Amino acid sequence: MSKPEWTADPAPLLAVGDGFQLSEVDPRSTPGFDGGKRDGEHLLEAEAPAISELQERLYAESRTGGMRRVLLILQAMDTAGKGGVIRHVVGAIDPQGTKIYGFKKPTPEELSHDFLWRVRRQVPGPGIVGVFDRSHYEDVLIGRVRHLAPPEEIEARYGQIVEFERELIADGTTIIKAMLHISSVEQKARLGERLDRDDKHWKYNPGDIDERLLWPDYQNAYQIALERTSTPEAPWFVVPADRKWYARIAVQRLLLDALRRLDPQWPTATFDVAAERKRLAAS
Amino acid sequence: MSKPEWTADPAPLLAVGDGFQLSEVDPRSTPGFDGGKRDGEHLLEAEAPAISELQERLYAESRTGGMRRVLLILQAMDTAGKGGVIRHVVGAIDPQGTKIYGFKKPTPEELSHDFLWRVRRQVPGPGIVGVFDRSHYEDVLIGRVRHLAPPEEIEARYGQIVEFERELIADGTTIIKAMLHISSVEQKARLGERLDRDDKHWKYNPGDIDERLLWPDYQNAYQIALERTSTPEAPWFVVPADRKWYARIAVQRLLLDALRRLDPQWPTATFDVAAERKRLAAS
Repeated sequence: MSKPEWTADPAPLLAVGDGFQLSEVDPRSTPGFDGGKRDGEHLLEAEAPAISELQERLYAESRTGGMRRVLLILQAMDTAGKGGVIRHVVGAIDPQGTKIYGFKKPTPEELSHDFLWRVRRQVPGPGIVGVFDRSHYEDVLIGRVRHLAPPEEIEARYGQIVEFERELIADGTTIIKAMLHISSVEQKARLGERLDRDDKHWKYNPGDIDERLLWPDYQNAYQIALERTSTPEAPWFVVPADRKWYARIAVQRLLLDALRRLDPQWPTATFDVAAERKRLAAS
Repeated sequence: MSKPEWTADPAPLLAVGDGFQLSEVDPRSTPGFDGGKRDGEHLLEAEAPAISELQERLYAESRTGGMRRVLLILQAMDTAGKGGVIRHVVGAIDPQGTKIYGFKKPTPEELSHDFLWRVRRQVPGPGIVGVFDRSHYEDVLIGRVRHLAPPEEIEARYGQIVEFERELIADGTTIIKAMLHISSVEQKARLGERLDRDDKHWKYNPGDIDERLLWPDYQNAYQIALERTSTPEAPWFVVPADRKWYARIAVQRLLLDALRRLDPQWPTATFDVAAERKRLAAS
């Protein structure tokens, strides 16, 4: 079986540009990919070695002074499959080259600081592919829906986020922002599965229903966040996620594109190879 | 092809007990395993799902209050294959369930504290499989060989390490300590490869030869550390590592044994499943 191929580059199809409407994105669609689940799984596996090698090159570059790194920001409603993307896409990379951080409800210490304080502490170092499982966007999503800060403060955050991301880019970070977009119907099915299976109970949280009841408010908060923070340097991609396999290959492709654009090269030796061969021979 | 099997449990064959002599361990041997490289690679792949599921169960347990976690401590001479073990053994686990930390030369801030200070900060949380790539043992290895502290301070550290590990165990940590044991001849070949291949230059450090010239001193420092810190609760395992594939399956087996002994179970629901089903249906 030859490797299934994208029929069109998914990046422009998923990118949030002018006039973007979240409500117009079909969560069951598979933009740029004509195949089915098997094809998707096959592609995921076939592309894994390329991602892994590119990250290793990026890491090698960092060992000789390179400052470039990648940050994948994942946002989604509950059950949309962030965990599966991390496991199946990022899990293919050497774990020494990744840094995954899940942002939970802020602690009292975190709340005592500016909302970006805890985020800055988790930015990946040079050569690393970092992943934010949720992020500073929570502060304009649940923050907005649940009124966790005064409206004028929430309003100010969009600009602060754009500015923050510009700083990261200036430091050598390539930012990939992906929202996994599921339908309310699909979420219901997935929550139901967590209730039906004993080995999934631990993933279920009664609070998930409370958030689910606010579905339209969250969709609205996402729409606003996507509009205000999708920039040419750090665009948002909305990834249809009712089909888990599609969400995985789409994020894999975005990550692969970013790494290929960086095109990291094995660094040349910073020492005298011939002299070291002699030292080794004499040792 | 059926899954290759261990012919004997390797753990007791590799454990450091009374009268242990590092110099008597053959780095090319494969204790407990009769097969060759192919068999080893096959076993490694075959056992990966079991490790991954056990870690997921341990993580699930932690979500409902469980405090247990695993810490794999890897020590070795340069080029022995710590990185490969992490990549191929630990890399099979969901990256969200692992925490890998490489200890480098201490920073000035770290040096201003007790030698265990920086180590305590990297201990894995509940449910996590942590890996120390080098560790507090450096402080009685390079620390001893390079006289980085007064002799009486080095002497005191062995007891401090045993005490520190007891604390971790009391907190729910299962500790696995593995020394990957290569021969000087094999190290020479591996360093030579790093000099010969352009894509390996970045892994080469002229300082590696400086350490290599102190080989007997390091072997002696390992012998002393292994003797003084191998305890019944946290034994050392010396893993022959001239054959990379063997080192990987041996560490995998130690990790698998530890997880199986913990025998983590999917937690029972902490909520009323029937009531939640109703709430979900109404949502």
